[in-house]
Amino acid sequence: MLSRSMKEVVANSSAIRAMFEEGKRLAGLFGAENVYDYSLGNPNVDPPEEIRTAALRILAEENPVHLHGYMVNAGYPDVRAKIAGKLNERHGVSFSENNILMTVGAAGAINVAFKTILDPGDEVVVFAPFFGEYRWYAKNFGADIKIIPMDKESFQPDVAAFEGALSNRVKAVVINSPNNPCGAVYPEETIRALADVLNGWRVKTGRTVYLVSDEPYREIVYDGASVPYVTKLYKNTFVAYSYSKSLSLPGERIGYLAVPSEMDGYEEIWPALTNANRILGYVNSPSMFQRVVAACADVTVDVSVYGENRDVLCASLTGMGYELIKPKGAFYLFPKSPVEDDAAFCDTAKKFRLLIVPGRAFGAPGYFRIAYCVKKETVMNSLNGFEEAIKAFA
Amino acid sequence: MLSRSMKEVVANSSAIRAMFEEGKRLAGLFGAENVYDYSLGNPNVDPPEEIRTAALRILAEENPVHLHGYMVNAGYPDVRAKIAGKLNERHGVSFSENNILMTVGAAGAINVAFKTILDPGDEVVVFAPFFGEYRWYAKNFGADIKIIPMDKESFQPDVAAFEGALSNRVKAVVINSPNNPCGAVYPEETIRALADVLNGWRVKTGRTVYLVSDEPYREIVYDGASVPYVTKLYKNTFVAYSYSKSLSLPGERIGYLAVPSEMDGYEEIWPALTNANRILGYVNSPSMFQRVVAACADVTVDVSVYGENRDVLCASLTGMGYELIKPKGAFYLFPKSPVEDDAAFCDTAKKFRLLIVPGRAFGAPGYFRIAYCVKKETVMNSLNGFEEAIKAFA
Repeated sequence: MLSRSMKEVVANSSAIRAMFEEGKRLAGLFGAENVYDYSLGNPNVDPPEEIRTAALRILAEENPVHLHGYMVNAGYPDVRAKIAGKLNERHGVSFSENNILMTVGAAGAINVAFKTILDPGDEVVVFAPFFGEYRWYAKNFGADIKIIPMDKESFQPDVAAFEGALSNRVKAVVINSPNNPCGAVYPEETIRALADVLNGWRVKTGRTVYLVSDEPYREIVYDGASVPYVTKLYKNTFVAYSYSKSLSLPGERIGYLAVPSEMDGYEEIWPALTNANRILGYVNSPSMFQRVVAACADVTVDVSVYGENRDVLCASLTGMGYELIKPKGAFYLFPKSPVEDDAAFCDTAKKFRLLIVPGRAFGAPGYFRIAYCVKKETVMNSLNGFEEAIKAFA
Repeated sequence: MLSRSMKEVVANSSAIRAMFEEGKRLAGLFGAENVYDYSLGNPNVDPPEEIRTAALRILAEENPVHLHGYMVNAGYPDVRAKIAGKLNERHGVSFSENNILMTVGAAGAINVAFKTILDPGDEVVVFAPFFGEYRWYAKNFGADIKIIPMDKESFQPDVAAFEGALSNRVKAVVINSPNNPCGAVYPEETIRALADVLNGWRVKTGRTVYLVSDEPYREIVYDGASVPYVTKLYKNTFVAYSYSKSLSLPGERIGYLAVPSEMDGYEEIWPALTNANRILGYVNSPSMFQRVVAACADVTVDVSVYGENRDVLCASLTGMGYELIKPKGAFYLFPKSPVEDDAAFCDTAKKFRLLIVPGRAFGAPGYFRIAYCVKKETVMNSLNGFEEAIKAFA
């Protein structure tokens, strides 16, 4: 009864669903506090108190028909202008309300951009390790992903391999920094190198390849790492942003797509994006939370909790013999699996009530992901399990 | 730079966008209160006070990490169970949480159902007059719509024509009662007749054609009209529901898809739907408003305002010489255009500061739509314009 596309999705989603079921089973057997669930990027840091305060005030003061009503598909103009102004202050860009499309999270933002530029048969380049959903987002529009293998030394994009992968089928490339699943932050020189390749390709072939910069973790960085603003380095960039992680609001589905006016084809792309937001069934980004995030434009969650988890995990796991690169951002750690078969390792880890995800889900077999957006006590109580798990393969 | 699919959308969306621009231009010239904007289904009746009360209480009481966090892609289990229970009470169905998928409005619900069952090349049958977005929702998955022409005498589905239109390409049929744009309510005998055709087709060919019942206007009915619950009459029905109109919350993007367990292929369809909700980029229905609508499960807006507008418009326009069928539900009136060219009539209406939509946008040229979800004074002040508009073609 299923469409062919959903048959493929369901067949490939079974591993993560099985982990979810296994987590529930283990919680039933041992108690939820004795299961160390590192499987999902669901922030456990409280949203800032300003969110609640703003929501209460907005509900009390604003006209409810306007507050909960339709607006133009791009979102409330004043909200978009406020966000544009903040980006201009922080990053020295020159955005107005006509460069900010409010979306249903970053997932909605990427799908709207893909719908606008992708035709069936096109390719979207991604760099391993990558967020596995990009595959399905591309397939939603009949396009395929082309994976550039992981640089195991640096976790940075392999720009030379990228240049070799360009073809007339390639319409877009996705980057994600700070990265899910490895926590790498791409420095300005990496973005410049990518931009040089893309500009060279445009001169040589007359074709524009768009960059989609997926940035839900922009605000979650450590050790003073800075995340370059990509539109300043390559004008043909869509920035997909979400408040899911920066304000711990993932369930509210609130984010935006930033689209510079200098982009090739902006005049036809902008109205197409607003139409795509409508016909993909989003219609608009949820209305009340548009106003809430605009009222909290200077606020972010307390990142120090994640930083402490990172420090404890990196030091402890390294001491146990795990090989890893200390992440500069996001709340993911991506150690090398002690055995080549990352799925077998994650299976064994379950015996110690550790729920972690095999690297193959991110295009990087032989590694595993720890989503450390959990309580500190979860981290502390889980350490013994990591020790037992590596010993099991010694 | 645009994808082929978005080129087609943008080319066909220009009429409505032009009307939107024209409305702004007229408001600038004459003042917003002197422009009678009947173009959009944006409810102007206040949400019930219970919405604000529930939202304030939920914000004050609930754990914010849970309230604004991810949940399973189908939505909070307790919210789904509550909605299922209310449907069981009201309609005598037998739903549980595993029959209710929380969605980003009815638009999200329809797209999730379509993604799950449609392959490229499939057909979706619609009955004119129909909500024009169905065309784009089908095309999102490479499918086409097949339009059954309008029965001008009754505005009811032409079941005989429907039977003649069935083929192996047809995978789904959409009905929308109370109807946008004509306000018709389909009685039980109409639904039974459709079900008989679909069941006969299944016996003859072995193929299931799914019914998608789009029901955002279910609660908005007049003169005691009753809206049959479609899953009781045809088991292979997806019900797409939205709180946009029943609670005046269209901007919040909150609705659900009801999927009976008896449906052919339910066991594989249900997990596919939850995956589709995720990979289409919705991820989940906005979290806080899931809890708000569950807390307000017995509440609807005051429909009497719309009923009064309906009565005034039907009596006045009939008196002026317009031909119309008095709607039984929704907040749309669909009179015959005084001239064959409905677009020309709507253009002329603009001279009298009336914004109305040509019937051709709904697959029914020669008619026009009045969205009377406006203030009563707008209706009263607009009447002279309707009189002048018909005189212009006398």
